[in-house]
Amino acid sequence: MSSAPVFDAAFRARLRELLIWRRDVRRFRPDPLPQGSIEKLLELVCLAPSVGLSQPWRFILVDDPLRRAAVRRNFETCNAASLAGQEPERAAQYARLKLAGLDDAPCHLAVFSDRDTARGHGLGPQTMSEMSEYSAVAAVHTLWLAARAEGIGMGWVSILDPRTIAAVLESPLTGN
Amino acid sequence: MSSAPVFDAAFRARLRELLIWRRDVRRFRPDPLPQGSIEKLLELVCLAPSVGLSQPWRFILVDDPLRRAAVRRNFETCNAASLAGQEPERAAQYARLKLAGLDDAPCHLAVFSDRDTARGHGLGPQTMSEMSEYSAVAAVHTLWLAARAEGIGMGWVSILDPRTIAAVLESPLTGN
Repeated sequence: MSSAPVFDAAFRARLRELLIWRRDVRRFRPDPLPQGSIEKLLELVCLAPSVGLSQPWRFILVDDPLRRAAVRRNFETCNAASLAGQEPERAAQYARLKLAGLDDAPCHLAVFSDRDTARGHGLGPQTMSEMSEYSAVAAVHTLWLAARAEGIGMGWVSILDPRTIAAVLESPLTGN
Repeated sequence: MSSAPVFDAAFRARLRELLIWRRDVRRFRPDPLPQGSIEKLLELVCLAPSVGLSQPWRFILVDDPLRRAAVRRNFETCNAASLAGQEPERAAQYARLKLAGLDDAPCHLAVFSDRDTARGHGLGPQTMSEMSEYSAVAAVHTLWLAARAEGIGMGWVSILDPRTIAAVLESPLTGN
C-alpha cells in the first residue's frame, strides 16, 4: 500500500462540485450504458463503509422486461397510496416523472442488504440491527457519486414494497 | 447556476483514492480541530441526498465532559453485550480501540434523523419509513468523505443504545 495521499484544495473544490451535481435524476436517455460501466462502478461501491467490514450490500441487475414491468406496477400501487394526501397536480406530476424514469433508464439495479452474512463478525448489528441496511445505503451513496463522476445519472426509487420486489426478483429478504 | 461540470479521469482517480483512504478511524490525535472545520464540513453534509429533500439529519456536538462520559458508559454496556459471543482476545482488543477512540477524539458528533420534519412533502417515508434514517446515513457518509479530504479522520460508533443517547443529549427521538 502506498503512503496516505494528501487531498488538496483543488480536489476538495471538485468534490464539492460533485456533491452539488449529484442529483436524484428522473429524466434519462435510454441509450445503454457503456460496456462494463456497471461492473466498474460496483467495484468502487465495495469501498463503501460497512459495519464490521461485512459488506452486506447485494445488487441485482433487473433487465428482464417482465420483472421491470412488475417493479413498475409495484411503484404505481405504492405511489398511489403514498400520494393520497398530496395536492393532486403535484402528485400527478411527481408520478409521471418517476414512471418516466423507470421506463427510460437503461439500467435498473435493486439493492438489498443481507443481515445474515457471515462476513464481518456480527459486530454492530447486535445493538443496532439496522446497521446492515445503513451499510447498503452507504454503498448506494457511493454508487451515486461514482456514477455522477462518470457522467452517469442515477435516481433512487424508494416508493416500493420491499417484500414484493424481493419476490419479483426471487431474492431472499433477510432480517426484517 | 453554472453549467454542469465534467469530471475527468484524473479527478475520478483521486475520488477512488479518497474512497480507499476513507477509514473507520480508531486512533486519534487529541488536538482540537482547526477553528471552523466542523461548520465547513456540515455545510457540505447538507448536500447529501435526502428523501423528498427533507434533510432530516440532526447533528449534536457532544463536548460536555459529563455527557461524553455518559456516552462512553453506554458504549461499554452495549459493547459488553455485543461482544459476549466473540473470541475473548479479539473482543478485548476491539473494546480497547473503540474506547481509546472515544477518549481521544477531540470532537464527538451524535447523529439523529428527524422523521417528523415538516420539510420535504412526506414522500418516500410513507412506504419505507426508514428513508429518513437512510438520508441521515448518506449525510454521515458525506461527512466521512469530506473530512478525509480535509485530512480529518472519523470513526462511527454504532454500538450504542439510541434511546439512552437521546436521553443523555436531551434530544427528541422520533419515529421508532
